[in-house]
Amino acid sequence: MKVGGKPYRSIRPSGEDGSFEVIDQTRLPHDFSIKRISVFEGALSAIKDMVVRGAPLIGATAAYGICLALRDDPSDKELAAACDALAGTRPSAVNLVWAIERMRSTVFPLPAPQRLAAALALAARICDEDVETNRAIGEHGLKLIRELGAGRDRVNILTHCNAGWLATVDWGTALAPVYMAHDSGVPVHVWVDETRPRNQGAGLTAWELGQHGVPHTVVVDNAGGHLMQQGLVDCCITGTDRTSANGDVCNKIGTYLKALAARDNGVPFYVALPGSSIDWSIDDGLSGIPIEQRPAAEVSEVTGRTGAGLIETVAVTPPGCPVVNYAFDVTPARLVTALITERGVCAASAEGLAALYPEQARAGAT
Amino acid sequence: MKVGGKPYRSIRPSGEDGSFEVIDQTRLPHDFSIKRISVFEGALSAIKDMVVRGAPLIGATAAYGICLALRDDPSDKELAAACDALAGTRPSAVNLVWAIERMRSTVFPLPAPQRLAAALALAARICDEDVETNRAIGEHGLKLIRELGAGRDRVNILTHCNAGWLATVDWGTALAPVYMAHDSGVPVHVWVDETRPRNQGAGLTAWELGQHGVPHTVVVDNAGGHLMQQGLVDCCITGTDRTSANGDVCNKIGTYLKALAARDNGVPFYVALPGSSIDWSIDDGLSGIPIEQRPAAEVSEVTGRTGAGLIETVAVTPPGCPVVNYAFDVTPARLVTALITERGVCAASAEGLAALYPEQARAGAT
Repeated sequence: MKVGGKPYRSIRPSGEDGSFEVIDQTRLPHDFSIKRISVFEGALSAIKDMVVRGAPLIGATAAYGICLALRDDPSDKELAAACDALAGTRPSAVNLVWAIERMRSTVFPLPAPQRLAAALALAARICDEDVETNRAIGEHGLKLIRELGAGRDRVNILTHCNAGWLATVDWGTALAPVYMAHDSGVPVHVWVDETRPRNQGAGLTAWELGQHGVPHTVVVDNAGGHLMQQGLVDCCITGTDRTSANGDVCNKIGTYLKALAARDNGVPFYVALPGSSIDWSIDDGLSGIPIEQRPAAEVSEVTGRTGAGLIETVAVTPPGCPVVNYAFDVTPARLVTALITERGVCAASAEGLAALYPEQARAGAT
Repeated sequence: MKVGGKPYRSIRPSGEDGSFEVIDQTRLPHDFSIKRISVFEGALSAIKDMVVRGAPLIGATAAYGICLALRDDPSDKELAAACDALAGTRPSAVNLVWAIERMRSTVFPLPAPQRLAAALALAARICDEDVETNRAIGEHGLKLIRELGAGRDRVNILTHCNAGWLATVDWGTALAPVYMAHDSGVPVHVWVDETRPRNQGAGLTAWELGQHGVPHTVVVDNAGGHLMQQGLVDCCITGTDRTSANGDVCNKIGTYLKALAARDNGVPFYVALPGSSIDWSIDDGLSGIPIEQRPAAEVSEVTGRTGAGLIETVAVTPPGCPVVNYAFDVTPARLVTALITERGVCAASAEGLAALYPEQARAGAT
């Protein structure tokens, strides 16, 4: 999508040695800065420190991280160590594991001297496939938005967290249908949940929608229920970090509350996802998906831009105040109107998913 | 309740001319500072700028504000102007209007020279009555907490915003039962919703619970649904700014989302309130209660304490980003397990309220 009128991807190779460039998302929306990553540890910390975030972008970053590790040492031992280290960075992101396994299984059978070139080719393919996947999600979601738009001046869409192009390589998942609607002349307006504690909505979603020219308004996470009660939301679309085989959706903490409000007010609640984020090994998301706890400082401190234009962090709780920080929650499938995938729209159920992904569903069930 | 081991009230007279002292709540939790207010305009701006907040404390502040106005000019004209100016500060606070009307109707029939003394006596009585009201709410709520505690190691209570002693003259509404439980040896732990955009939970509720020694943990507003899904919440108790005659509850934005989660997980959702906050003229809160919109900067900017100990404000949205800030929402009575009032616990319904407040219900219905 566009930044300052120019098309961008969130990640791109910057050489033939595995080095790559990403947008430093910890600096947004205050500062648009590109970070070049040229050592394996840089890839690790980019994921850990959320310089990159969003399941698909994390997967792509891990792929290039493996390239960097293999550049320095293409041995079996180093490949295994790199894969293990990357897999431990974000336990909730299922297609991080998916990307790592895909890299490992492609590279491992090859003789060491051929590994880097094969890894680079596959990392590029993972990126291109992500763009194509999201474009397909966008087209399927666009049909839903067009239907909602019939007879309306504009379609009001509420989203939570950032599942836009910044979270993927391009297009985004939840926002792909929004960008397509906007670019094809369907008038859309996005209610952007702030998304505490890390403010990915206020910081990232608002920034990318603004840069691309999509009308939007930021609200606190608390506001969505009121907006829906007042008839100001035509549908919700969120992304997901992991979807279980029965259609339960693990996404940024607070998604479940919006799904409850949508159900209470008869507002369709859609979740957009690539098939790679479905965890076929889990058939009950509520009991089966582990919920990552992140540092308390993410809650007790807020980072932003001072009046003088500096980036500053301020504490909002009393000194020493006890805090817990659950990063995700699970929205039960019963609250999800439909899943929007690259293969089409389906019910959030084992049957719905199995109809679109018959092979994976069969393999997962065994 | 206690600050640093010493008992405090949130407001107290500081002379015989209507001057009074409040805790500057805009400085909490970073700085405990007492603000002396000795002119009418100071009372107005204390309410407008949220130096004081919480429906009962706003009412008490307005009462002393009228004293200050009468000190300077005890005429009919000044009394009317002072009442009107105070009533316009916070349109959602029904017992602001209640306190003002009570002052006006008591003072107006008197000759001008007697007005200040009568106003001072009534302002003091309004404060004392608030303390007594909240103590009674606490005793009725304590029974519910004791029942929940049977067979449990501790009772986990989730609250939203600040309906503690800082929002009243003492005890609080939602937190009165919590303080009583704690002080009488019932082990309680409070999940404190951060309560964006003004962070009254992270800043005020966490501070007052901490000062009084009540175990608590701050979470982002997004977390409550997950906590309830995991069985970590035994009940919710919130306050309310205005309750309609049918039991709909207007409270800080986001309350409705917690009530939905409570219903979905079989968690009791209680709302604590003084009878003075019931608006008997409205019998459908969803359509009848106007929702205050506050400045966008409350959402786009966050104030806190820097590492150097300074109070600083930082922006969290892109420059120029569109923002809206609905301050309240309405939780339908059907989601409220019971109302806890100074007269007892009742169903959130016209019948429930009428049983406790028969005269007011009859008067409101005519």
